[in-house]
Amino acid sequence: MKKHIIKLSATIVASASVAGRTEAEGPLGSLFDLTDPDDRFDCDTWEKSESEIQRRAFGLALKKSELRACDIGALFAGDLQNQCVGSAYGLLEFDIPYFGLYGACSTSAEGLLLASIMTTHDSVERAAVVTSSHFCASERQYRNPLEYGGQRTPTAQHTVTGAGAFIVGSGGDVEITEGLPGIVIDKGITDSANMGAAMAPAALSTLLRYFEESRLDVDEFDLILTGDLGHEGSEILRDLASAEGLDIRSRHNDCGLMIYDRERQDVHSGGSGCGCSAAVLAANIIPRIARGELSRVLFLATGAMMSPASLQQGQSIPAVAHLIKLERGRIWNR
Amino acid sequence: MKKHIIKLSATIVASASVAGRTEAEGPLGSLFDLTDPDDRFDCDTWEKSESEIQRRAFGLALKKSELRACDIGALFAGDLQNQCVGSAYGLLEFDIPYFGLYGACSTSAEGLLLASIMTTHDSVERAAVVTSSHFCASERQYRNPLEYGGQRTPTAQHTVTGAGAFIVGSGGDVEITEGLPGIVIDKGITDSANMGAAMAPAALSTLLRYFEESRLDVDEFDLILTGDLGHEGSEILRDLASAEGLDIRSRHNDCGLMIYDRERQDVHSGGSGCGCSAAVLAANIIPRIARGELSRVLFLATGAMMSPASLQQGQSIPAVAHLIKLERGRIWNR
Repeated sequence: MKKHIIKLSATIVASASVAGRTEAEGPLGSLFDLTDPDDRFDCDTWEKSESEIQRRAFGLALKKSELRACDIGALFAGDLQNQCVGSAYGLLEFDIPYFGLYGACSTSAEGLLLASIMTTHDSVERAAVVTSSHFCASERQYRNPLEYGGQRTPTAQHTVTGAGAFIVGSGGDVEITEGLPGIVIDKGITDSANMGAAMAPAALSTLLRYFEESRLDVDEFDLILTGDLGHEGSEILRDLASAEGLDIRSRHNDCGLMIYDRERQDVHSGGSGCGCSAAVLAANIIPRIARGELSRVLFLATGAMMSPASLQQGQSIPAVAHLIKLERGRIWNR
Repeated sequence: MKKHIIKLSATIVASASVAGRTEAEGPLGSLFDLTDPDDRFDCDTWEKSESEIQRRAFGLALKKSELRACDIGALFAGDLQNQCVGSAYGLLEFDIPYFGLYGACSTSAEGLLLASIMTTHDSVERAAVVTSSHFCASERQYRNPLEYGGQRTPTAQHTVTGAGAFIVGSGGDVEITEGLPGIVIDKGITDSANMGAAMAPAALSTLLRYFEESRLDVDEFDLILTGDLGHEGSEILRDLASAEGLDIRSRHNDCGLMIYDRERQDVHSGGSGCGCSAAVLAANIIPRIARGELSRVLFLATGAMMSPASLQQGQSIPAVAHLIKLERGRIWNR
């Protein structure tokens, strides 16, 4: 078997999250560093609001780390807007070398993996990762303008309004010890209202590759956290994994399920978007690892790599899932 | 001054280029590995043609290197289509860990920089970079469908139909010895028919940072090659650099100027697109370095990071330029 797991020695120095109103009303609402009651963040278009969310998330992460922009050697960023303009404009005021990424909703893990590679090998001392999404910007780009009032199917997911920002370097409480970049998988799903089904096989592929190569057991992790498969995709992943002899049910959760209360909120199959996994990781998972409530977590952000145009041309939905392994810092080593 | 130059120890093991008809009719026409007389590459939409160009370019690079897909540990790819679907579909058949990038026309250098970092530190043994653009796909996404027959201003550039693919690892004749990631710069240009003016300040920023930190002279390079500033942007860059005390006129050329004959071909200010710098680098520059005709080259691909929507909302055009230093392999060290 080809070896793909990359050994890393990086830590998360600081993280910050910003979220919108629906997210603030969800189960993790009190944990976000900043929320806005009307999702506008003082901007006059939804697209600019998304950039502002990135700007504020990264500003908050810098503040928590007590670092300045010039202390960061590389910035990895991405979002769902065409040409990734949420990131390009949002981070423009920071004079930091900039690597634009496009991994759809997998961008948070893709960025953390690349940032960790760079800091592990001292290509830069510290790197930052910022990813975002905005429900209203996504609706009009991918589906319909909000004013249309379109109805959605039960398998559809609700794009998270939010962002997560991470500063990667040395000295943090949460370590990134391994990474496994995903292989793009396309199992022929063509229903753009069922991204979970398209992304679950990509998550499965990465999980199977990880457990085969690492020879670890599912039980050795406190949490196997997928990015945003939502309800539908999570069920499919658990079933597919089980059929492959990998029972993850006791350990699996999904950022798209955690961020909303599907009983109480009108979010169909759960959350999605580049901001979903990033905000959940920053607001909930990293603090829990830092406090010792979780000691070993596999984080796989999943992304669907199609476009509206590619679906119109009859293509199916390719997907990818990048993995990183997060662990409580071994403080006795410091 | 903050240090940002990244020391690298990678080589280009193989490279390949694919181009369309206008490019085949240009000055470098005989150098491309594969061209197609009608730009369709046997596909029924321009978007699928672009994916096919990527697929063939990477296949050719693999063939030249006598490697198989499973010998490549990471694939960095990107293009200009919304959600970067040119790359996602084009490289789907290869089971290789996939990092999606969005750096607009700077993607080739962004990818080569990240691939070199990974192979320098043995995160993977070999990595590949593939970037593309397609004139017809770009026209209808960014401007007008071809059938409209829109007229263009003299400062407008012509999106290259083409791709370049590179395999990075050890043992090649052309070394990548340094990299400098670009900082996003926005000088307030709002004319989407003058990308050269928007991108020239980004190229200037990266060049000034490079020469300040490296303390090298312009004369120490055989060629300072920008990605695709075209005629307008190249003139602006040379003037701006001169005003900063950096005279690059004797060494500067631009991929957007090299790929077409502006006297003979109707391409306005020259070439652009993620495929422009990649195809020129693969077809012309790397072979010339390998043959010893050039021994030290600075390659800066430049990208304009706006979207049609961001311009409609009154925003100006941010741009970025990533740099790598290419040198003839020090064969006496092998």
